[in-house]
Amino acid sequence: MATLIQPKILKGFRDFLPDAEIKRALLIEKLTAAFRSYGFVPIDTPALEYSEILLRKSDGETEKQVFRFTDNGGRDVALRFDLTVPFARFIAEHKDELYFPFKRYHIAKVWRGEKPQAGRYREFVQCDFDIVGSDSACADFEILSLMQYALACIGVENIKIRISHRGMFNAFLAKRQLSAQSEAILRTVDKLSKIGKDETFSQLAGITGSTENAEAVFAYISGSSDFESTLSLMESLAGKEAESDAKRMREIYTYIKEAGMEKRIVLDPSITRGLDYYTGLVYETFLDSLPSIGSVCSGGRYDNLAGLYMKDKISGVGASIGLDRLIAALDETGDAQKQKGFLDAEIFCTDESLIAYYQKIARILRSSNVSAEVFPEAKKMNQQYAAAEKKCVPFGIFADTAQAQKNLLTLKNLATREQYESLTVHEAAAKIKAHCGT
Amino acid sequence: MATLIQPKILKGFRDFLPDAEIKRALLIEKLTAAFRSYGFVPIDTPALEYSEILLRKSDGETEKQVFRFTDNGGRDVALRFDLTVPFARFIAEHKDELYFPFKRYHIAKVWRGEKPQAGRYREFVQCDFDIVGSDSACADFEILSLMQYALACIGVENIKIRISHRGMFNAFLAKRQLSAQSEAILRTVDKLSKIGKDETFSQLAGITGSTENAEAVFAYISGSSDFESTLSLMESLAGKEAESDAKRMREIYTYIKEAGMEKRIVLDPSITRGLDYYTGLVYETFLDSLPSIGSVCSGGRYDNLAGLYMKDKISGVGASIGLDRLIAALDETGDAQKQKGFLDAEIFCTDESLIAYYQKIARILRSSNVSAEVFPEAKKMNQQYAAAEKKCVPFGIFADTAQAQKNLLTLKNLATREQYESLTVHEAAAKIKAHCGT
Repeated sequence: MATLIQPKILKGFRDFLPDAEIKRALLIEKLTAAFRSYGFVPIDTPALEYSEILLRKSDGETEKQVFRFTDNGGRDVALRFDLTVPFARFIAEHKDELYFPFKRYHIAKVWRGEKPQAGRYREFVQCDFDIVGSDSACADFEILSLMQYALACIGVENIKIRISHRGMFNAFLAKRQLSAQSEAILRTVDKLSKIGKDETFSQLAGITGSTENAEAVFAYISGSSDFESTLSLMESLAGKEAESDAKRMREIYTYIKEAGMEKRIVLDPSITRGLDYYTGLVYETFLDSLPSIGSVCSGGRYDNLAGLYMKDKISGVGASIGLDRLIAALDETGDAQKQKGFLDAEIFCTDESLIAYYQKIARILRSSNVSAEVFPEAKKMNQQYAAAEKKCVPFGIFADTAQAQKNLLTLKNLATREQYESLTVHEAAAKIKAHCGT
Repeated sequence: MATLIQPKILKGFRDFLPDAEIKRALLIEKLTAAFRSYGFVPIDTPALEYSEILLRKSDGETEKQVFRFTDNGGRDVALRFDLTVPFARFIAEHKDELYFPFKRYHIAKVWRGEKPQAGRYREFVQCDFDIVGSDSACADFEILSLMQYALACIGVENIKIRISHRGMFNAFLAKRQLSAQSEAILRTVDKLSKIGKDETFSQLAGITGSTENAEAVFAYISGSSDFESTLSLMESLAGKEAESDAKRMREIYTYIKEAGMEKRIVLDPSITRGLDYYTGLVYETFLDSLPSIGSVCSGGRYDNLAGLYMKDKISGVGASIGLDRLIAALDETGDAQKQKGFLDAEIFCTDESLIAYYQKIARILRSSNVSAEVFPEAKKMNQQYAAAEKKCVPFGIFADTAQAQKNLLTLKNLATREQYESLTVHEAAAKIKAHCGT
């Protein structure tokens, strides 16, 4: 006999057993329904692309993390590490086949060779949604509205979406003659919640060359008491160049108020999205009960999505839900919605000569929209019960020869042990549906 | 300005534009519902695994096709080329966390560096469903029943499922003292429909050393007029060793008849599934309208799923739908179900100062289960109409300042151009739902 191979998976990768996969699948279904209700359509792109396409714009950090190799045809290829770069390539390649504004969602796996740690995996699912081809406050707001709605659809209601505007921040830095240092400043401000105020201040003083500059940056990113006064402060510090951006922010805030979303939205000028390619509105989303896990849905507006691949500038706005991080957070806060299996009825096998009858019961139940399965062998009843319990099946069905001859059965509520004798299959279906609310 | 990168994807890989992805997504949703109604649960496994895990059992052909490389940690890894090998590894690794019989479905991408040709891609979606841990006629039948039901759920009703039994074929070969040549014989018989009878016969004569043997094999694989007489013929040619297998086939046939499925099932002893690991019942599914595309759903029973990874033998039965091949077939036969988008109403933007009102309309429609979007800018009406047409939106909504002040709107059926003036949003929602049947 050949030596057995130890069954194991790669570090940072995961199997999803039924309970975990059902939970993830149901979340994805609800998010999908939310995206569709806003008029977004799905697309798909390959998991594997030319490295040149995926990595051209990347900093060294991304390059180190990517799964990159030479395929059998000698091509330099890589697994996608996000859904944004493939989307930019997709837009450039198919722009003549699409209509604009183009609204797409894309829920798919991405791969990064990150150091595995809590909530960080080398394979994870991203849910991206973007509107491209419209530089408007309406589109900016629609993404914000959908972020809130999609999260609410999966039971995540207590959130704060912290927003700001990259263009205004850049105008502010230009006014202070700090444009040359803007990358380093953005990077530092982005780490504020991680490294704390004192460390941020001293780093900013180092970068900008003076404590006066650091104080000015701090005055800007600290904001004021509410949305409108913070916006006025940002505008006054950023000056004339920020006027049109401030006007855009006011429009968006009108829509926010009209939609009754003020309580969920915080104008927070310290939100910058680091070195990402955003140029306008930026968003991050935090759970009220677990802000420390970081943003579970982030995004913003960019003015040149596909600039690496085409001459036309195309503006867009979008966001991304880090589904696996969100699931980890919900598990931690206990806010994960209880998910049961999909099975309504287990037809127990007490007599193998009746399997054709059991199959008939299953067929009729399924045609009445009741999911059902036949236990395939006449195993001991405690084994059959144990399997049904593992599957969280609410109902069991029994039939013996006498019942089969009369097309009858016994229905049992497996939780309450209540039992109904001599039902027809249709009567059983009605009882199950009344109970399961289907 | 930096040189533009040509936006392109790898040979054999595909982008899915919204029309194609909507079609695929809806098929997957219907298949998923079918699997769940039979009590199957989803699992997921990583796209990337140790090459040792994936390739140990493979013939050289698979090895040549696989995307295999060394990762940044020096591990020899590969992209999965099917969902069966990872499932075997999964069962061995998690057997103590699962219950048996265990029924799972898995719909996911797999990758093979095959020579791209019509209907063959390097990245494609497999839909697998298996019952493991029960060696029973009931489980054999349940897969058969689900194959037929799942395909019917996606509108594929006119099919023939051709079945046979590998164990009986092996018994027949043993009786003719051809066991030593069984691999070559199976491989040849599997090619029958491709290479034709004459070529098959001459190859069989070569392999078996005599035309007499080739004639005997032909007598076996040609079968007889109907299920029962073919089964009797197989049994008489295969002899005593095949008795229990024949009994199993009779049980399954009882269930087939009881379910009214006789017309869809053909006992065809030439079905062998080539060199696959099947040991019992085997199935292939052909479209009545396009048999030449080959089997769109195949499977069978295997008696030692995870033998490479664990000592316990675990028997199972399952099948796999080649979704992309099936979609190609449906496109060719014109049987593809017409799929429209998900959007019920486009709220046209005729006045940007009314965007807050348009957003309110969208919000109320969505809360009434009507999907809606606001066109985000006051572009020319012909542009807005053209986009709505591309998206197949059935209804358009207009509102001017006077209507907005009274919370009213105009609803337009975009196909018939019928127009309803001065509706409330709830009246509009009711009209749209009545029309869309939601």
